[in-house]
Amino acid sequence: MTTLSGGAAQPRGILAPRSVAVIGASEDLTKFGGRIYKNLVHHRFSGAIYPINPKREQLLGIRCYPSIADTPTPPDMAVMAVPRDAVKDAVEACGAAGTRAAIVITAKFSDAGPEGAELERQVVAAANRHNMRIIGPNCLGIISPANDLVLCASPALFVDEMPKGDIGLVSQSGALMATIFDKAMARGLGFSHCFSIGNQADMDMCDFVDYLIEDERTRVICSYIEGIRDPARFIEAARRAHAAGKPWLAVKAGRTAFGAAAAFSHTASLAGSYQAFEAACRDCGVLTMDDPDAMVLLAASLARFPQARPKRVAIVTTSGGGGAVTADRLTDHGIALAQFSAETASELSEIYPANVAGSNPVDLGSAKQGGSLVVGASTLKPIITDTGSDLILSAITTAPDVELLCRRFDEATVAARDEGHVKPHIIVLQQGQSADAARSFLRSQKIIYTDSLDDAIRATEAWGRLADTKPATAPARPAAMEPVSLPEGLSGSVGEAEAKAFLGENGVPVNRGQIVGTAEQASEAAALLDGPFVVKVVSPDIVHKSDVGGVVLGLETPDDVARAVTRMGASIAQKLPDARIEGFLVQEMRTGKVELLVGARNDPQFGPMIIVGAGGVLVELLRDVAVAMAPVCEKKARSMIESLQIAKLMQGFRGSAELDIDAAAQAVSRISWIVSDIGPRFCELDVNPLLVAEAGKGCVAVDARILLDDN
Amino acid sequence: MTTLSGGAAQPRGILAPRSVAVIGASEDLTKFGGRIYKNLVHHRFSGAIYPINPKREQLLGIRCYPSIADTPTPPDMAVMAVPRDAVKDAVEACGAAGTRAAIVITAKFSDAGPEGAELERQVVAAANRHNMRIIGPNCLGIISPANDLVLCASPALFVDEMPKGDIGLVSQSGALMATIFDKAMARGLGFSHCFSIGNQADMDMCDFVDYLIEDERTRVICSYIEGIRDPARFIEAARRAHAAGKPWLAVKAGRTAFGAAAAFSHTASLAGSYQAFEAACRDCGVLTMDDPDAMVLLAASLARFPQARPKRVAIVTTSGGGGAVTADRLTDHGIALAQFSAETASELSEIYPANVAGSNPVDLGSAKQGGSLVVGASTLKPIITDTGSDLILSAITTAPDVELLCRRFDEATVAARDEGHVKPHIIVLQQGQSADAARSFLRSQKIIYTDSLDDAIRATEAWGRLADTKPATAPARPAAMEPVSLPEGLSGSVGEAEAKAFLGENGVPVNRGQIVGTAEQASEAAALLDGPFVVKVVSPDIVHKSDVGGVVLGLETPDDVARAVTRMGASIAQKLPDARIEGFLVQEMRTGKVELLVGARNDPQFGPMIIVGAGGVLVELLRDVAVAMAPVCEKKARSMIESLQIAKLMQGFRGSAELDIDAAAQAVSRISWIVSDIGPRFCELDVNPLLVAEAGKGCVAVDARILLDDN
Repeated sequence: MTTLSGGAAQPRGILAPRSVAVIGASEDLTKFGGRIYKNLVHHRFSGAIYPINPKREQLLGIRCYPSIADTPTPPDMAVMAVPRDAVKDAVEACGAAGTRAAIVITAKFSDAGPEGAELERQVVAAANRHNMRIIGPNCLGIISPANDLVLCASPALFVDEMPKGDIGLVSQSGALMATIFDKAMARGLGFSHCFSIGNQADMDMCDFVDYLIEDERTRVICSYIEGIRDPARFIEAARRAHAAGKPWLAVKAGRTAFGAAAAFSHTASLAGSYQAFEAACRDCGVLTMDDPDAMVLLAASLARFPQARPKRVAIVTTSGGGGAVTADRLTDHGIALAQFSAETASELSEIYPANVAGSNPVDLGSAKQGGSLVVGASTLKPIITDTGSDLILSAITTAPDVELLCRRFDEATVAARDEGHVKPHIIVLQQGQSADAARSFLRSQKIIYTDSLDDAIRATEAWGRLADTKPATAPARPAAMEPVSLPEGLSGSVGEAEAKAFLGENGVPVNRGQIVGTAEQASEAAALLDGPFVVKVVSPDIVHKSDVGGVVLGLETPDDVARAVTRMGASIAQKLPDARIEGFLVQEMRTGKVELLVGARNDPQFGPMIIVGAGGVLVELLRDVAVAMAPVCEKKARSMIESLQIAKLMQGFRGSAELDIDAAAQAVSRISWIVSDIGPRFCELDVNPLLVAEAGKGCVAVDARILLDDN
Repeated sequence: MTTLSGGAAQPRGILAPRSVAVIGASEDLTKFGGRIYKNLVHHRFSGAIYPINPKREQLLGIRCYPSIADTPTPPDMAVMAVPRDAVKDAVEACGAAGTRAAIVITAKFSDAGPEGAELERQVVAAANRHNMRIIGPNCLGIISPANDLVLCASPALFVDEMPKGDIGLVSQSGALMATIFDKAMARGLGFSHCFSIGNQADMDMCDFVDYLIEDERTRVICSYIEGIRDPARFIEAARRAHAAGKPWLAVKAGRTAFGAAAAFSHTASLAGSYQAFEAACRDCGVLTMDDPDAMVLLAASLARFPQARPKRVAIVTTSGGGGAVTADRLTDHGIALAQFSAETASELSEIYPANVAGSNPVDLGSAKQGGSLVVGASTLKPIITDTGSDLILSAITTAPDVELLCRRFDEATVAARDEGHVKPHIIVLQQGQSADAARSFLRSQKIIYTDSLDDAIRATEAWGRLADTKPATAPARPAAMEPVSLPEGLSGSVGEAEAKAFLGENGVPVNRGQIVGTAEQASEAAALLDGPFVVKVVSPDIVHKSDVGGVVLGLETPDDVARAVTRMGASIAQKLPDARIEGFLVQEMRTGKVELLVGARNDPQFGPMIIVGAGGVLVELLRDVAVAMAPVCEKKARSMIESLQIAKLMQGFRGSAELDIDAAAQAVSRISWIVSDIGPRFCELDVNPLLVAEAGKGCVAVDARILLDDN
């Protein structure tokens, strides 16, 4: 087996051991060591098994050793669930014995505060001194059906036989790994390897993903992620998985905890850590989902139909009610119901009465003659060959002999395949025990099914996103854009005038303006700008400028501007006598048809992210945003804008004019390059609004702020 | 048994028969008559059973009769699945024999077109001549565990024993009835009665609901609805169910089919038939849901905890990962995670380390000492008594001996109950077969659980809405508002000027205006209004007025208005020489801070509905609307406005002023009374936008249209 080769430090060598020691092995199933040992032996690991227990001669018929130093050959891998304070010595002993990897189940290390974290460092240091790697601590071990290797105490393994499959799973939660494994097994789905990775003190998620990328028995990679330790490695691993043709699916916990309250800007709350994670995943080819069971269902489907990228769903059902509920649910998730081709509709019209023939959902019960069993195969076959649909979702409710119906489906599928037609098909069995015979049949035939309509819909929705989930090509810098460097003197929180000047110098359209101190200067400044004009007071003490007459719009001439400054000064002096007035900003007044927000944020994990969304007052109402890793080229910026709900208003909505999406995309791309060029000092940027005018008339940033890190 | 009494035509007498005939009974399980008969006998109906089959002497040990005329006493109820064209004669024979109700399983009546509908009418007429009622046709019969009565062919009944429960179910889909029954049974949940009602040719949904309202063994009513036959009866039945303290839950198919394309107005697409159904349900006390299994889970919970109206959820979990996924999912659905009281936090801090104690979710695995089994009971008990949370959702993942954990939970629950504390608790078992022992235990103890996190979340979300789902009190007409009648001459599609004049006369603030023919008249009209002014062209041929210069805003003086009319006439004559110009509308220009849409629509089922939502360009973007049955009082109108997303912008958003919600609520209430007063001629009304100004400054309808039925 090729996976048994490889260097000592390579995951490939480490994760396919030829011999395994269980430290603290026993027959006591109330203990970790007892359950792990039982599962290992029960599932017939083909390599050498070394139970370590000084009190026993043998365990389950296998010779027992008093210590790891006593085994006939050094065990490639050891697993331990010893008390925390004994872990370091046990790891030392394993290392000294020549073990290449130790799985540490024991918890309360870095997961329990600074003291545990220090001990964890010592454990890893001890292991590394012996060129040994640590899996965990605080993990639940591994389940490798492809290697017949179970080093996991979970009662989910108390089964006669584990199914083998082509799905690899890496999980930061041990309990979820076992739960996912158990639930999948109930539906007849198996794995090649399941790794629970715990605190990742030494071996990190990407080590395991790397193994799965190389492993021939793995076709799809699933993961449950709580946090990314090394984003650069994560992105690299994602690219490798994509290059290897292995889809990588990820469920991440903590999607909804934004901590928006602490945000400096809109951008921070709109592109929190989960949004950044999601954008990074999409841009490097990892498909995000929100449910572990649905992830496994999709993984199994992808392993079966690797080329399919279905968007249009045909529903086949045994009852009108089941079809209606399913159609509603698909529509809720924005999934398109297929429209059958004329040919398919014609074939179905021979089976179904005119008022329903060719419509979707297809209710087997509405056939002209006979019930589901009679028309199951003859209905499914034309739908498999139909060119108007990409995926079949069978929503099965209680009906006589559902097992036989599933057999009819299978016959039609095999017949179609023999003629060269395949189409993804997810069967949903919504019944209780009355479908158990059907479930057994489907499992025996390795046909994909689920009991959960929700899982089927989630899998379908995610599958629809897969075509757009791929490693982004290196973005092109806009033509004629030089690398940007921060001007001297910009620091901390950079206000409107300075921020816009900086953006304007780097090719982002801004409305021109100047800060002046007197009415006379205001008039002179206006004479150099294009009217009409706006005057705004500049004061660190005035938050809501309009409330105190601190904003005047629509001034036609330089004289109007001068008068406005005089009146504004007097008005504020009266209303807020203590406010410090630093000057007056005289600007060109610009208008647009739609307000966008363009933001950027330096994500602590993934670096600069660019955000575009509905701006102005719509920011908080709509949360209508697209997020991507910066920089982005103009084409990508355009597709971000087009993905927004408010894109409708920019594309000739209800007879209104089309807006200048090209100009907006250029501005977004330039801003993304600017923040990327700034480098580590960049924290956040908010342009709100970017006014977008009609096609050919450009866009303009009329307000902007930048936050820089001065250290 | 009290339910055996009652008059012949009352559901109460009809649905609890003392004797039952099965027409076409046999031992052939491939046939409906065979399966129905088997299920009836197997589930030990205690009344008389009369199999009808001329070819047999006896069936399953029971004497068989050649025809229904031959039974020793007239059977109270007969069930038939005979060929369609034999149904009428069979019904005649039943009626002649003195049967009080016939269940017709046979399909292809009104469900299959006009010919079937005519036959269906004849069948009902034949039955009614004999004072007999028809259930169906095109139904799957009834399952009445409370009466030990099964008249249903579904293989879901091929079980030793059916659980009895206190949930009644009425379903327009027979297959879904059986599927819901089967799935519930797998989770240990039982029903009092399940009725599949088919085409409702004679007995209608409300007849069955009435029976469940009176039935002592039914505590909660569930329903699957495809359409309402008699909305007035539906509303009345809902009020009776509410008065009887029996929550009524409903899943309706066809939620997402709006037919918005064919709509006259925004209102029609925003308040399609499902929205009207949903509003009517809420306003008469029926709780709408979107999933049948979740409906049954909630029904079982409501039967157990009838007083609870939980809003704040405490999550208990066996793994951090399970808790994180659950917390994310609850947040997605807008459900609040509970904050434990200081007392609870203090009790939990004895079990959990400081960094997690008192936080929600509670991960049993993070306890200082021991695992889930050790701390299960001691953790649950303070959470049951906690004053900061209303419902416990236990998200259980794979763990050692989950059955024992469930026993610990049960001990804590019983101990708390003995001290007078109860709290709803939904246990979610996310595992596969490793939790089967736990499931058996929970079923045996009648403890509520589900395998589906989705169902648990849906049930929790719906439960949170129950407090607001109750029969509305009769709405009060606004003070000083007389009943409205349509002025002479209004008909068909009523344009802005006439519609606003009508609304203005009935107390809805509108901006004043006048249609004029010449520049001179325009100037005179403006002189009688308050400036600034707007001029709009009035033409049946111009849809997008702004595109051809047909709208001018911000005119200061009557002279400006006259000049604008002259220029507008010339501009349109040049751009659209064929457009008929009926005049120019000179109006007061009004501004507001927020634009609302106020609409109304005469729903074909539920009568006039009032809609309020985000107006202007936001209509299509946000679909941010509240719908209610009209008329509504001002208080209800206010709560509708406050339920909108854009209400944020009206309540002092980001330091801006509060807006005049009172005035807007008054306008909404008045409009709702106006459309109700108009009566059957009313079709649709659109006020868009209703501009809402700052508090105390009112609101104003600046555009309006009304559609009337002239026949």
